[in-house]
Amino acid sequence: MKKGKFIVVEGIEGAGKSSAIGVIEQVLEQHGIAFIKTREPGGTPLAEALRDIVKSASHEEQLTQETELLLMYASRSQLLANRILPALANGHWVIGDRHDLSSRAYQGGGRQFDDAVMNAIADVTLKGFTPDLTLYLDIAPELGLARAQARGELDRIELEELAFFQRVRDKYLSLANASPRTCIIDASQDMAQVHSEVKKAVSAYISQQLGA
Amino acid sequence: MKKGKFIVVEGIEGAGKSSAIGVIEQVLEQHGIAFIKTREPGGTPLAEALRDIVKSASHEEQLTQETELLLMYASRSQLLANRILPALANGHWVIGDRHDLSSRAYQGGGRQFDDAVMNAIADVTLKGFTPDLTLYLDIAPELGLARAQARGELDRIELEELAFFQRVRDKYLSLANASPRTCIIDASQDMAQVHSEVKKAVSAYISQQLGA
Repeated sequence: MKKGKFIVVEGIEGAGKSSAIGVIEQVLEQHGIAFIKTREPGGTPLAEALRDIVKSASHEEQLTQETELLLMYASRSQLLANRILPALANGHWVIGDRHDLSSRAYQGGGRQFDDAVMNAIADVTLKGFTPDLTLYLDIAPELGLARAQARGELDRIELEELAFFQRVRDKYLSLANASPRTCIIDASQDMAQVHSEVKKAVSAYISQQLGA
Repeated sequence: MKKGKFIVVEGIEGAGKSSAIGVIEQVLEQHGIAFIKTREPGGTPLAEALRDIVKSASHEEQLTQETELLLMYASRSQLLANRILPALANGHWVIGDRHDLSSRAYQGGGRQFDDAVMNAIADVTLKGFTPDLTLYLDIAPELGLARAQARGELDRIELEELAFFQRVRDKYLSLANASPRTCIIDASQDMAQVHSEVKKAVSAYISQQLGA
């Protein structure tokens, strides 16, 4: 059986990841491709328990930056071993709402953990595994956060200061520009245009795969 | 105010850590030294939640070795920041039931994670923090596990095969031998003798500190 492919959507809060994922679902369905969806952190019962710990803004106890980093990768390890890899091996495609690039951007860029630390933890967790296609929805933090704010309550990470999100975006952009498997989409455009570019990128990738 | 000291008791299951800790408590009390006790993994509300995840033998979901490693250090980060460091800063001593040497022995030795991986994760979590005195209770796994078995139910890690515990003990011994702050005690001796050696080691350390 032909292995499935892993498509990841990345971006800061308010970039429009959820609706982009909806567009990708439609494209895969139109091609008759079976898929599952994942989100990070989370995606398995154990990883969701870790997500709750990371996301909650209401701990009596301060979450250290190191714990946040380690829990993100612990969650990723569970998701990879117990959902992503089995799905791909069964020929299903996987649409990921965030993956390793998020940790690189938020913990590496935002929290300013050294590249050496990030690489060591990513290497032991992922053992070289990478998405087949990543769509990075790029947007200025001011605009993205205003959108997220309009949606309602902000979680612990979404309450960070603007400078934090500026560092996150800068890291996203530099890593996305360096990766041939990552497509950068301007998410400040109107939604129809963003969706059109998402559809085009995924359709082109599928054509290339079916042709191969 | 004079900073407190961090004394850690280490060893495999059945080595007698709990009763050794009882002896250390008595010695500190006799010297009028205020202390708190910690255990790892765990020791804060958040770290205890992580302990439950690591210890449970009954997940529907397989815990990956990488998740186990990352959760051990996430727990340690919380304990260090929120209990150990504040206690030491307040002049309290801390008696630890396990600390980093356990991860080195179980994950590094038992699970065979590379030293480079262990060092990278330990460095980012601990930032050079180390116990002031470690008592390593050395015992052959056959004997320690027989004792632990006599105590009742074994948890997920205690169900590992004998070869795993042999690797754990080997790593414990090699690291303890290389550390001037670690005292190796033969835990296969009768309990009175073990307790006598624990008392002697801790008393000597206290005398040296009070004299300094």
